[in-house]
Amino acid sequence: MTLLNELSATEAAQKIKAGEITSEQLVRACIERIEAREDVVHAWSATDFDKALAAARACDATPPKGPLHGVPVGVKDVLNTHDLPTQMGSPIYDGYQSRNDAACVALARAAGAVVLGKTVTCELAGIAPGATTNPHDVTRTPGGSSSGSAAAVADFMVPLAFGTQTGGSVLRPASYCGIVGYKPTYNTYNREGLKFAAESLDTIGLFGRTVEDCALFSTGLTNQQIDARASKRAPRIGICLTPMYEKAKPETKKALDEAAAKAKAAGASVRMFKLPAKFARISETREVLNNVERARSLAWEWAHHRGLLSPQMTKSIELGLKTSEAAYHDELRFAEFARVKLDELFADYDILLAPCVHGEAPVGLAFTGEPAFQGFWTCLHVPTLALPAARGRNKMPVAVQVIAPRWQDQRLLQASIWLRDRAGISLPIPKIKKSAE
Amino acid sequence: MTLLNELSATEAAQKIKAGEITSEQLVRACIERIEAREDVVHAWSATDFDKALAAARACDATPPKGPLHGVPVGVKDVLNTHDLPTQMGSPIYDGYQSRNDAACVALARAAGAVVLGKTVTCELAGIAPGATTNPHDVTRTPGGSSSGSAAAVADFMVPLAFGTQTGGSVLRPASYCGIVGYKPTYNTYNREGLKFAAESLDTIGLFGRTVEDCALFSTGLTNQQIDARASKRAPRIGICLTPMYEKAKPETKKALDEAAAKAKAAGASVRMFKLPAKFARISETREVLNNVERARSLAWEWAHHRGLLSPQMTKSIELGLKTSEAAYHDELRFAEFARVKLDELFADYDILLAPCVHGEAPVGLAFTGEPAFQGFWTCLHVPTLALPAARGRNKMPVAVQVIAPRWQDQRLLQASIWLRDRAGISLPIPKIKKSAE
Repeated sequence: MTLLNELSATEAAQKIKAGEITSEQLVRACIERIEAREDVVHAWSATDFDKALAAARACDATPPKGPLHGVPVGVKDVLNTHDLPTQMGSPIYDGYQSRNDAACVALARAAGAVVLGKTVTCELAGIAPGATTNPHDVTRTPGGSSSGSAAAVADFMVPLAFGTQTGGSVLRPASYCGIVGYKPTYNTYNREGLKFAAESLDTIGLFGRTVEDCALFSTGLTNQQIDARASKRAPRIGICLTPMYEKAKPETKKALDEAAAKAKAAGASVRMFKLPAKFARISETREVLNNVERARSLAWEWAHHRGLLSPQMTKSIELGLKTSEAAYHDELRFAEFARVKLDELFADYDILLAPCVHGEAPVGLAFTGEPAFQGFWTCLHVPTLALPAARGRNKMPVAVQVIAPRWQDQRLLQASIWLRDRAGISLPIPKIKKSAE
Repeated sequence: MTLLNELSATEAAQKIKAGEITSEQLVRACIERIEAREDVVHAWSATDFDKALAAARACDATPPKGPLHGVPVGVKDVLNTHDLPTQMGSPIYDGYQSRNDAACVALARAAGAVVLGKTVTCELAGIAPGATTNPHDVTRTPGGSSSGSAAAVADFMVPLAFGTQTGGSVLRPASYCGIVGYKPTYNTYNREGLKFAAESLDTIGLFGRTVEDCALFSTGLTNQQIDARASKRAPRIGICLTPMYEKAKPETKKALDEAAAKAKAAGASVRMFKLPAKFARISETREVLNNVERARSLAWEWAHHRGLLSPQMTKSIELGLKTSEAAYHDELRFAEFARVKLDELFADYDILLAPCVHGEAPVGLAFTGEPAFQGFWTCLHVPTLALPAARGRNKMPVAVQVIAPRWQDQRLLQASIWLRDRAGISLPIPKIKKSAE
């Protein structure tokens, strides 16, 4: 029998609605899992289990409010919660308690979700890591900056969690942890109550163990019922190697090759998709936007608590402060040009498949991995999804990246399900130890 | 002799730097003015004069830190300040104290500015007004939502103030109060620490009594030394009536006609600038973006404090909640298309001149005036400036709107100075009673 904490969000929501399980039972199972494993995984920055259980009981006492009724979620610690501190992985925010919920958290709760706790983030959603480990191999990074959210979902501590992506902070940890990471089109979930990293890039995203769970989560957050069924017809797929392809490790190249072959065998049209040469600039564009906008959004911290910022963040801010307004504007313009151009280039394709990560999660916790393959698409504002696809030499998971045009999020999710179910691109979540051993 | 509170920011900064006056003297003069007039104007939502004087003395004790050294500024009450409450014109935020300064406030202080206090905003930067009156006629609205910032600057209580514009919340109060309002290109000043109204529109802007003062303020907030001198050559001007022109009152049409004639007489090339017919949609686009994004950014308030929202805000949120995702995406796409298209249309023009407001400030405080002429350009993300130009039948000020292409903010400021100095488009700030009488 499946343990309750191993249910998908979709299964759990159905069972709660049908009266087969209670939200309280589900939340208790998640809490037990956290208590068994948190000493090893370190996914959570703040929890209040009594509050979570009270919220679960309140759900159990009322008819379903929305599609997430009774389902526990984790919240990355750069999103405000009125009842738990938001510490942002930075000593500057030790004990900080906001007045409000972030808009996305308020919407999740309005749809019935139970906030189980705050998950560990790299410092201010940057690259200086917290203590979270990869649940499949504790000597390896879970990726970042949404480290705790990815690890908690992968470790069956919670079925859903919020992340944010400015470079690769949702899709990379999803790939490293073997789960689904979904970054919607820029500006899909409102950012009120999110601590900005870089305004023109920051995108709130979701983690789940299945594509359907991400679709359910998104349905709870938007004005739209997302149809989470496989695309009716085989998608027209472009294989986009991206300008950084040469840096990909063999496991990533292999995962992409195999995915393309499987999709073709299942009847998809699969062709190479070539980006214009000038798109090579996108990585540099993203770096400039990231550095300049971090320097600006952290103006208060820089003025008052400079000594409490990490060397990594300090370097990013210093690079930002050195950049001229004119150079920054040039990159904003180029990003806009490239986003509009990509819409056109998509005309003959439904989705793209691209490398998601350099390779498996690297050994060590000090470095959360390379964001280049994810950040490229973040800058283009298109919706992207990390689809677990293969294992590397060390048996760690590797995803492929599925990409759709801006605002075609439903197509992205449906095509991802097609790829999994019709083409067989999937990777069961690696077996995880059942307790701290 | 000019009273210190009547000095422009530029003059004050020079005199402080030269040791001719102290920041403390200047701040004291502003405080005296506030004490004499606040009972009538109601421009401030929170002040702590002891803190402001201490900050002024700290400036006087150190060499200049930046271009705003010792200069007092007002801060619209939707921007966080670590040392004064941020109450947002809403009972939901009574007594709310943030941990941080908003990024733009932190940058202003880093450039030497002294925060004199928080200024009255309409409820959550919307349209439900506070108690602020128009300093030139207390029976009339000062405009909104940056009501207190505009009134305080016009009343010589403070030389500079922050505003925000989602529809017309900077330029309209500037026009009604007879001062300069400057909305830079979208995304010029980082919005960390701003309570969102509608994310894809919200733009932090500035108030001053001169264009040079806005340029000085902006220099303090950006990585760029803005050259605040008149354009070297006469600008190529397009007169853009905009699709709402028929709704303009005679004083607005006359102000624009006279401005065009004066510019032509001074040697500018002046031609009619026709927008493509489809640009008529922009006003509707802005409404949809505004309503949908307000409904999202206020998700927490809607869930927990619905009864404390005004009828106006409730209506906007309800309209937003009724809008489909697809309809919202269509408007986002159209706005992007129009912004890029406007760049092209600008090719043969340096600036545009357009109506700024329907007319003079209307009588009454319950309605802050029509935002259509300002909101049209807000949605297009271009930098705009309210240049005081004429008086209406009731002797109240009327501005013309100066518009430049995105990221051409220096051109906007220089051309505005050209229009004032070379073409004589100017309006001395109406005489204001020297005390509450």
